[in-house]
Amino acid sequence: MDQERYERGWERLRQIHGEEGEQFIENVKSVAPDLARFIVEFGFGDVYSRPGLAVKTREIVTVAALTALGNAQPQLKVHIKAALNVGCSREEMVETMIQLAVYAGFPAALNGIELVKQVFDESGKKGGFRRSASSGS
Amino acid sequence: MDQERYERGWERLRQIHGEEGEQFIENVKSVAPDLARFIVEFGFGDVYSRPGLAVKTREIVTVAALTALGNAQPQLKVHIKAALNVGCSREEMVETMIQLAVYAGFPAALNGIELVKQVFDESGKKGGFRRSASSGS
Amino acid sequence: MDQERYERGWERLRQIHGEEGEQFIENVKSVAPDLARFIVEFGFGDVYSRPGLAVKTREIVTVAALTALGNAQPQLKVHIKAALNVGCSREEMVETMIQLAVYAGFPAALNGIELVKQVFDESGKKGGFRRSASSGS
Amino acid sequence: MDQERYERGWERLRQIHGEEGEQFIENVKSVAPDLARFIVEFGFGDVYSRPGLAVKTREIVTVAALTALGNAQPQLKVHIKAALNVGCSREEMVETMIQLAVYAGFPAALNGIELVKQVFDESGKKGGFRRSASSGS
Amino acid sequence: MDQERYERGWERLRQIHGEEGEQFIENVKSVAPDLARFIVEFGFGDVYSRPGLAVKTREIVTVAALTALGNAQPQLKVHIKAALNVGCSREEMVETMIQLAVYAGFPAALNGIELVKQVFDESGKKGGFRRSASSGS
Amino acid sequence: MDQERYERGWERLRQIHGEEGEQFIENVKSVAPDLARFIVEFGFGDVYSRPGLAVKTREIVTVAALTALGNAQPQLKVHIKAALNVGCSREEMVETMIQLAVYAGFPAALNGIELVKQVFDESGKKGGFRRSASSGS
Repeated sequence: MDQERYERGWERLRQIHGEEGEQFIENVKSVAPDLARFIVEFGFGDVYSRPGLAVKTREIVTVAALTALGNAQPQLKVHIKAALNVGCSREEMVETMIQLAVYAGFPAALNGIELVKQVFDESGKKGGFRRSASSGS
Repeated sequence: MDQERYERGWERLRQIHGEEGEQFIENVKSVAPDLARFIVEFGFGDVYSRPGLAVKTREIVTVAALTALGNAQPQLKVHIKAALNVGCSREEMVETMIQLAVYAGFPAALNGIELVKQVFDESGKKGGFRRSASSGS
Repeated sequence: MDQERYERGWERLRQIHGEEGEQFIENVKSVAPDLARFIVEFGFGDVYSRPGLAVKTREIVTVAALTALGNAQPQLKVHIKAALNVGCSREEMVETMIQLAVYAGFPAALNGIELVKQVFDESGKKGGFRRSASSGS
Repeated sequence: MDQERYERGWERLRQIHGEEGEQFIENVKSVAPDLARFIVEFGFGDVYSRPGLAVKTREIVTVAALTALGNAQPQLKVHIKAALNVGCSREEMVETMIQLAVYAGFPAALNGIELVKQVFDESGKKGGFRRSASSGS
Repeated sequence: MDQERYERGWERLRQIHGEEGEQFIENVKSVAPDLARFIVEFGFGDVYSRPGLAVKTREIVTVAALTALGNAQPQLKVHIKAALNVGCSREEMVETMIQLAVYAGFPAALNGIELVKQVFDESGKKGGFRRSASSGS
Repeated sequence: MDQERYERGWERLRQIHGEEGEQFIENVKSVAPDLARFIVEFGFGDVYSRPGLAVKTREIVTVAALTALGNAQPQLKVHIKAALNVGCSREEMVETMIQLAVYAGFPAALNGIELVKQVFDESGKKGGFRRSASSGS
């Protein structure tokens, strides 16, 4: 009955996470169909569809939160990919982790960097990574 | 001897946190002078002075991390103020907390909102707060 | 437009948290009206209105999570009250904290016990607290 | 000399965690014999043997805490199994995770659901999972 | 019947936390007598009475854990006092917090330093604080 | 230009973490060269090179913090090795985990013990582990 919220959320989910996101929802659905529905309706239909924060900023907020919490490495990797998908640069991902070293400690930041590296490697574009200005390049 | 890093950091600290930041450093200095120095040199001279992430984005990363960790309410309030100082809109602060409800849970987001409210109230500009589009304004 | 979810949630919220809950929502509304709406619609209309877990068990789940996270003392106190409102015994609250000493550490459990004590004291029924069997009473 | 506490604890451990629990204790004993002893004596002999909280509720408290903390996935899986062993329904486990989405965030809840799924799959009874009422079944 | 463990624990508690510790236990006892008993028997009778780690090192482990967890500021203050009571120097407390800046982030370390400062001030010996060598004294 | 801090840090890193540490830094460098530099300059050149806390105590502080945070198992293993390298006894590592059971909960302590066991096994000296006095040996 909440068809509109669901469809808006599904559209948003596809836009941010692509096919991988759809498969994830299918997987959750097989155990907890209502939890899968809440993710689409509430997470993507209500929250991710809001104005007030650019979708790029929204992904940065999420990446920062998951890195700080440190309890959801698979989801963090998915959101690093999503951040790149919606327009974050690779350098912004690296800088986000460097900033988090100050606030969540170096281990959290290093776990984040490892995932950033995996996402870069898997996208086969590792060579194109632009080193940050202050390291002399 | 690291005079240049210290001065660059001090300048940055003043720009982001103003007089309150200077007093904070003085307070830390009275117990742990080297920790105070590291905050200025490393936190502000090295990390906050980097290119690669707009200062506004850097504050959003910090606000998201502190909200998710939930272990540093006074610092979170200081960084909400700083985020507004460097150009975040009030709506972006509210939206950041709404986004975090999904990732760090509602209680963390509500503690964040309470601090956003305090910062708004203290700046005496509460009336000017723009309600988000979907709530009908 | 989601009037039905909102009303179902509001009813549920009143039932669990009483007048204090209503005032809390009003307070959130003054800064972040949509976050207040999500709490009522999603938190109470969707989640707290579900079958599958007795409302008493649902409150125990919440009390355990907030004690373990340790980042939301005011909300924990509110949920200890709510747990007692919906039928948990005082002994069950104390035992929950003792169980959590094993999993979240003694400090988290002791912070929880302190809040349990405050709720007991404020409800003016401290004298009636039944000591647990194994302590010899 | 604390033979009675140890034996009461061992009995309790076997009842809740079965053979897997005994092997776990043997493994801990090979590195830290006193820590293994404390788990049996204190964790199971003292805490799990207490009246005041039904053993089923005690497992729900533990599952909620471990899901919220997010720092002990192997133990969480063991306690989801234990919760089912002592009488929790599969739906109660799913609902517990849905409730925790509100308080510990969706990623913690999703990690919990993944472990619930694994336990269901391994017990070879996946087909029997009763979908919750509100999803239309 | 576990009289010996209780007495050994009580003696240890008095030695580490003094009168303040005794009052704390009395306070817990009024709500959860068995939790108070477990703290004395298990925390102090079993764990704090063990050989293998100097009592001074044991307090440093505890201070580091509570600073990193950030969920128990009152207990952290009590253990900073206890660390000084059992022979830690003031400089070691300050250095512990500086070390933790790297691993738990600066905010956790700064909250720790604030409590170290409070303990120093309350002990009326602030003037005697020895600045660390690398800050030029 | 901060050549001296970098060299001091690199020397310290080699001393504490050996060849494994050098490889780790190389790995970080390939994605985030400045983060790698900050670890050497700030983590090892500034913090680990300080007087005021014996290097052995510094490692115990780190092991305690990482066990309590529970968000960095690979780094925790590296620091357990480092603690043994700089003079901690095996018994002190085990006792540290037993102490942490009280403050961070048993699951965090058990995850720590598992890593201690792995480090012991890999160093091929498992047989030499001295059981603690109170377990009757």
